[in-house]
Amino acid sequence: MIRVAVLGAGRIGKIHAHNVALNPRSKLVAVADPVEAAAKSLADSLGCEASASAGATIARNDIDAIVIGTPTDTHIDFTLEGARRGKAVLCEKPIDLDIRKADAAVAEIEKLKAKVMIAFNRRFDPSSAALKRAIDNGAVGTVHQVVITSRDPSPPPPTYTASGGIFRDMTIHDFDMARFLLGEEPVEVLASGSCLIDPAIGAGGDYDTLMVILKTRSGSQCHINNSRKAIYGYDQRFEVFGSKGMLLNDNVRATTLRGYTEKETEIREPLLNFFLERYEAAYRLELDAFLDAIETGKPMPVTARDGRQALRLADAALESAQTGRMVKV
Amino acid sequence: MIRVAVLGAGRIGKIHAHNVALNPRSKLVAVADPVEAAAKSLADSLGCEASASAGATIARNDIDAIVIGTPTDTHIDFTLEGARRGKAVLCEKPIDLDIRKADAAVAEIEKLKAKVMIAFNRRFDPSSAALKRAIDNGAVGTVHQVVITSRDPSPPPPTYTASGGIFRDMTIHDFDMARFLLGEEPVEVLASGSCLIDPAIGAGGDYDTLMVILKTRSGSQCHINNSRKAIYGYDQRFEVFGSKGMLLNDNVRATTLRGYTEKETEIREPLLNFFLERYEAAYRLELDAFLDAIETGKPMPVTARDGRQALRLADAALESAQTGRMVKV
Amino acid sequence: MIRVAVLGAGRIGKIHAHNVALNPRSKLVAVADPVEAAAKSLADSLGCEASASAGATIARNDIDAIVIGTPTDTHIDFTLEGARRGKAVLCEKPIDLDIRKADAAVAEIEKLKAKVMIAFNRRFDPSSAALKRAIDNGAVGTVHQVVITSRDPSPPPPTYTASGGIFRDMTIHDFDMARFLLGEEPVEVLASGSCLIDPAIGAGGDYDTLMVILKTRSGSQCHINNSRKAIYGYDQRFEVFGSKGMLLNDNVRATTLRGYTEKETEIREPLLNFFLERYEAAYRLELDAFLDAIETGKPMPVTARDGRQALRLADAALESAQTGRMVKV
Amino acid sequence: MIRVAVLGAGRIGKIHAHNVALNPRSKLVAVADPVEAAAKSLADSLGCEASASAGATIARNDIDAIVIGTPTDTHIDFTLEGARRGKAVLCEKPIDLDIRKADAAVAEIEKLKAKVMIAFNRRFDPSSAALKRAIDNGAVGTVHQVVITSRDPSPPPPTYTASGGIFRDMTIHDFDMARFLLGEEPVEVLASGSCLIDPAIGAGGDYDTLMVILKTRSGSQCHINNSRKAIYGYDQRFEVFGSKGMLLNDNVRATTLRGYTEKETEIREPLLNFFLERYEAAYRLELDAFLDAIETGKPMPVTARDGRQALRLADAALESAQTGRMVKV
Repeated sequence: MIRVAVLGAGRIGKIHAHNVALNPRSKLVAVADPVEAAAKSLADSLGCEASASAGATIARNDIDAIVIGTPTDTHIDFTLEGARRGKAVLCEKPIDLDIRKADAAVAEIEKLKAKVMIAFNRRFDPSSAALKRAIDNGAVGTVHQVVITSRDPSPPPPTYTASGGIFRDMTIHDFDMARFLLGEEPVEVLASGSCLIDPAIGAGGDYDTLMVILKTRSGSQCHINNSRKAIYGYDQRFEVFGSKGMLLNDNVRATTLRGYTEKETEIREPLLNFFLERYEAAYRLELDAFLDAIETGKPMPVTARDGRQALRLADAALESAQTGRMVKV
Repeated sequence: MIRVAVLGAGRIGKIHAHNVALNPRSKLVAVADPVEAAAKSLADSLGCEASASAGATIARNDIDAIVIGTPTDTHIDFTLEGARRGKAVLCEKPIDLDIRKADAAVAEIEKLKAKVMIAFNRRFDPSSAALKRAIDNGAVGTVHQVVITSRDPSPPPPTYTASGGIFRDMTIHDFDMARFLLGEEPVEVLASGSCLIDPAIGAGGDYDTLMVILKTRSGSQCHINNSRKAIYGYDQRFEVFGSKGMLLNDNVRATTLRGYTEKETEIREPLLNFFLERYEAAYRLELDAFLDAIETGKPMPVTARDGRQALRLADAALESAQTGRMVKV
Repeated sequence: MIRVAVLGAGRIGKIHAHNVALNPRSKLVAVADPVEAAAKSLADSLGCEASASAGATIARNDIDAIVIGTPTDTHIDFTLEGARRGKAVLCEKPIDLDIRKADAAVAEIEKLKAKVMIAFNRRFDPSSAALKRAIDNGAVGTVHQVVITSRDPSPPPPTYTASGGIFRDMTIHDFDMARFLLGEEPVEVLASGSCLIDPAIGAGGDYDTLMVILKTRSGSQCHINNSRKAIYGYDQRFEVFGSKGMLLNDNVRATTLRGYTEKETEIREPLLNFFLERYEAAYRLELDAFLDAIETGKPMPVTARDGRQALRLADAALESAQTGRMVKV
Repeated sequence: MIRVAVLGAGRIGKIHAHNVALNPRSKLVAVADPVEAAAKSLADSLGCEASASAGATIARNDIDAIVIGTPTDTHIDFTLEGARRGKAVLCEKPIDLDIRKADAAVAEIEKLKAKVMIAFNRRFDPSSAALKRAIDNGAVGTVHQVVITSRDPSPPPPTYTASGGIFRDMTIHDFDMARFLLGEEPVEVLASGSCLIDPAIGAGGDYDTLMVILKTRSGSQCHINNSRKAIYGYDQRFEVFGSKGMLLNDNVRATTLRGYTEKETEIREPLLNFFLERYEAAYRLELDAFLDAIETGKPMPVTARDGRQALRLADAALESAQTGRMVKV
């Protein structure tokens, strides 16, 4: 039984805490959040201890692993603290907004040979995982092109958007999926950004509508498109094209119901609303993969270096969008 | 060049006349219709002769084949007249509404070894033909169940419905498709009829909503459902289930366009409106098959006996619907 | 907190026990099974008591509700015992194989005003529930035709098949769905049965391949087709056609992945294997509905009378298949 | 009756000649090709005159319109010759490979107010046309992103590829579709090219695998991806995403047949093989649009300036792919 503490009792922390509590291989020992009421309420509902101090929680001897669902600027500190104390760490993305801090953290983590996993949950979505397995089994031969469609149902509050910008906050998931599906490191980045949805986003120096092209050393390409507002719901599609075929992942709905009326046919319901619903299974399976790596001693399936690489691509894409030049990575 | 005359200048006659005129292997020599203006108008538009007399047209020596698109009660007479004069005949369905007349006609046609084809056009639809080829290639193994969905967009005028009733007029196509897809003769018929769309249809002693079960000697089953009014359009689907798999044919639309809005996703346009649009290619390919059989001397792909068998199933289904008993054929 | 005991520690009992244990509104108090080891193993894994005696378990004062997942011939006895002691009862289908016993049980349950629910889980599948809501909201207008496709991936062992036959064991689910979707009681039954998959099934006097037609007093129709062996997996589809449109429910797969190769396109994975996977959510939501009815005092969503009606249709269908006559219900 | 001559008796010329011959509003007067045997064979099959001289054919007084299906380097000369003689001209794409020659030609054509149409046939595909109508009707609100997937089944012979390169030969269709669907002129171009399919293509200085991003002045974006070899067939898909929704166009197949086997479900046949099959209707409807514009005196639906703009985007994309910089147009 792996004893786990969850740091952060917000939206993401709650998901992780529930999954830890329900997983037969893990025991939820404590939830920590500086907002004590939040920590207490979550801990009570799940039958574990509450704490206002992340530091004190990480320091506990009766804890084997920590799951970090706190604000981005605490990710590295808590991760390193856990790593130094020999805890396994599952840390939410992004690892940080500053590539130099990320570099230093990765260096220390690798030196410590610490068990650190970055929570790029989409890799663990059943359809994404099946897609990756099919690629690895040769279903498309050599990968030539990847197309990632990734659109949110609505933009976050402007204050939130400010923290790092769309490339580091939203596209970072797609950069990780691009690396996952390409199976090779991108070395060239082209990006183009627009502000079409909310002028306040543009006024803050950010974009809400993006297109990116990545190219690997061997010449494989990846297109990513992002929008902060798809009126029809959370749009998450993946296409992998190669020398022997193509694989497509489509969106997910709650039911299979199709309607026919006088004017329209094949009508289906909206997509699953947002990431909490769409990636519900992914969060559970991500925890499973983390617990597997702890139990077996095998490498973490997503490392701190993976977190760093995605951030590097985000920085490069931002630079390309701002300068109109291809940026080498 | 096969010289063809078309009898009947109505809706169906027009289709046949156009196809004969456009087919590189056939030459449209004449169009005959007792309504002279209709014959003349069609003949003029296609550059052939017009006649008010079907008999005189059939008697012409410079005609190799006739296509019969006249009212049902003339089908057998014109077919036999053509057969006796050594013409190849493509006759619209149903062969007749009276099984005894049909039996006598089949007997004479077979004795004459005449080239007579009944125009069950659905067999020649590209999707239906591909379905049949796949069955014959073993894609489903032994056929266990066939499901035929066949719904019209709107009922014919009550006067038309009266002529033979829904089983002999509409379901007859589905009985032919059932025989085509089962690959074996049905020997038991169960049917249930309702009048749900227009009380005038029921008042005329007919049904507008049907369900049928057929069973062959080897135990294969076929379900047919019919409605005279599918508000979403002409619904024509086929399913063949067997020991090694299943094959499905879906409906056809003019475009591939799908729409996503705030409330609905995957919205497609209505189905192709009715049989003239849905089976446009089938009419062309049916003529090709007729010309092929003439040129090669091979048997007609749909014989007068096929027309008779479909009528026999229609009669049996009507009896079953009226008596509540399974009728053996 | 509703205190629940589960009777039966077999395949179905395990599902119910897990769902009761995980549901935040219910507490799993005990599991009973005459095979003590099975009861103990299940109870231990879920942290509850085990018992070898269903009777003793039903008699406990600290239990509010029982879930019956025992063999069919015990369903009525345990249900009535629970009902008499004032317990809420969720009993697996079928209620019994003997319509007279079912009638007597329904009479007593109704007299007692007991809270008894029959576990027709398919009604609670998210897609089925959405389909029913759409019908109730008028999406198809008046229901004219329902088509139910229901095929198992492989036949049960011959010994099991013997217990009641396919109509009472397998089709009974479809009879319940037919009543649920028609919204009206069928009054006429036509059925046709074949043995195409395993001669041993036919030798036992049973069928493995079925087609059924039901008709309600108002003339609405329902077609059911069954096979004991669909090589491509557990096939569960529903179609509801009416005066204003059509609704379709399709099968469910684990992922959305589609493949394109040199010879084939749009290739998808097999269907979810069988009912445990396909109706996993349905079992959970069924329990929710049962707990809701207990908490709110509202009528059970599926009553003992519903269980009896489905059995009556199964008997009628068997009689029709054997006699070739429509059977009035 | 519009009297038409077709220049070029190759693959494309044949299509145009057949369509002109079959269209009830046009009369095919002559076919011209320097390869006399080709001209004669085509003319004989369609019952028109043959000529070895394009110039003499254009000069005929009994011709109202010419359709140019000759090699690219003759497009502008024949177009201008026709324009100067007052003929309506339908000219195959690309207008030329040299932007300066294209500019000069456009200037003269506009000065002459000549009726010149460039044959970007994809605009006239029924699904593309329906997509454009839906956009114009506001189905997606303001267009934010367009995604164009355009992959050939196999590369042309290396000699052919050399003539202008992939951007001017293949992508030029997609640049035209981008302009058509964006409804606004792109002003920024980013492109990335790889050679993954045939080293001979790269050795000739060309690419076989492309990704492009276009941006308009208002910030709308378009992604194009190209491959010279999609093993699963000719892949032509369009996606238009906007403030109020999304529209998708999928590929086309000859039948609707879907197969289910033990291992795979929903299997469909390959896509229509290549542009002759895929855009068969588009070629016919393109001719209709050309004839419409002649008869009504309305502007040509695709002008010489449209041809020039697509070429300009092709040049810019090539420059971007070679320099790694965004190119302003």
